[in-house]
Amino acid sequence: MRTTIELAQEIGYAKLSIEAVAARAGVGKHTIYRRWSSKGALFLDSVLSLNVSLDYPDTGDILADLREQTYTAVDLLGRPPLGPLFQALVGEAQRNSKVAAALNERFITPQAEKSVARLKKARDEGQLSPEFDLDLAMSILSGPLYFQFLITQEPLTHEYVDRVFEALFAGMRPRHHE
Amino acid sequence: MRTTIELAQEIGYAKLSIEAVAARAGVGKHTIYRRWSSKGALFLDSVLSLNVSLDYPDTGDILADLREQTYTAVDLLGRPPLGPLFQALVGEAQRNSKVAAALNERFITPQAEKSVARLKKARDEGQLSPEFDLDLAMSILSGPLYFQFLITQEPLTHEYVDRVFEALFAGMRPRHHE
Repeated sequence: MRTTIELAQEIGYAKLSIEAVAARAGVGKHTIYRRWSSKGALFLDSVLSLNVSLDYPDTGDILADLREQTYTAVDLLGRPPLGPLFQALVGEAQRNSKVAAALNERFITPQAEKSVARLKKARDEGQLSPEFDLDLAMSILSGPLYFQFLITQEPLTHEYVDRVFEALFAGMRPRHHE
Repeated sequence: MRTTIELAQEIGYAKLSIEAVAARAGVGKHTIYRRWSSKGALFLDSVLSLNVSLDYPDTGDILADLREQTYTAVDLLGRPPLGPLFQALVGEAQRNSKVAAALNERFITPQAEKSVARLKKARDEGQLSPEFDLDLAMSILSGPLYFQFLITQEPLTHEYVDRVFEALFAGMRPRHHE
């Protein structure tokens, strides 16, 4: 799997093939096919073997903690060396539903659970609106980051993260100040 | 280009090839390569030739208008027959930066401009917070939809759209009611 990562970083995921990984690793391609049914499956296991795990700090200030956690996430997954691999993996998930399901089960969902646990505590402490819909938390908090990462493909800066959170916390509706 | 769409719908984008399109259309593959440098470029032009354009209603109620426009968008782009084509196109944009740039220039940006114009009017009318950051509007409004479409890959229902907008309008911060 390390060979897969190295080769993907050298030549790009689009040009990667099981044949090329086998040649670089010095094994027959059937050795690889015995364990992985497709390039996508091999790549998924290879990227997940890097064991990226993003923990949530708890300083008692939910906005500061979300910022810190998200800075770490975008620095790690939103730029080289890992960024292009994660982007290729999400791209592969658009053509291979097994890769999509495994990516969700093994990475997205466990991360979301940590995030929701931290947000629930903040909501219980009165730092989030009692109406805030925790089931939507991941969509709302990370959707704007994925939009920038996958659609506009502009850099994910800390300043962008700050602006997104400020807007999400404030809400779009006008406030009637006392 | 119609042949490309038909074939992509029959066999899926992953299996689509310029050779297969040429054979189905009864032309030589060089005829296609003269105009399109890659399968991705051909597919982009083919999907965009469907001329999907999403206009913004203006009934004077921004939340109702956003809902209507977004129902139309998710019904069209978030489910068959067009949904899988749009999903494949976004997937291709993760491996081909020319496709990503063209998708932004020819579809995402023109749609965003319409959306921002409608939101600016609503902000000027006091229906949105005067602090609402219009430059972030597309990320914040459509990011949660793309997250569901590309990452969790669960159905984009009208109910989901309603919940997202309700959460975005209200904001995450607790309100101090008078």
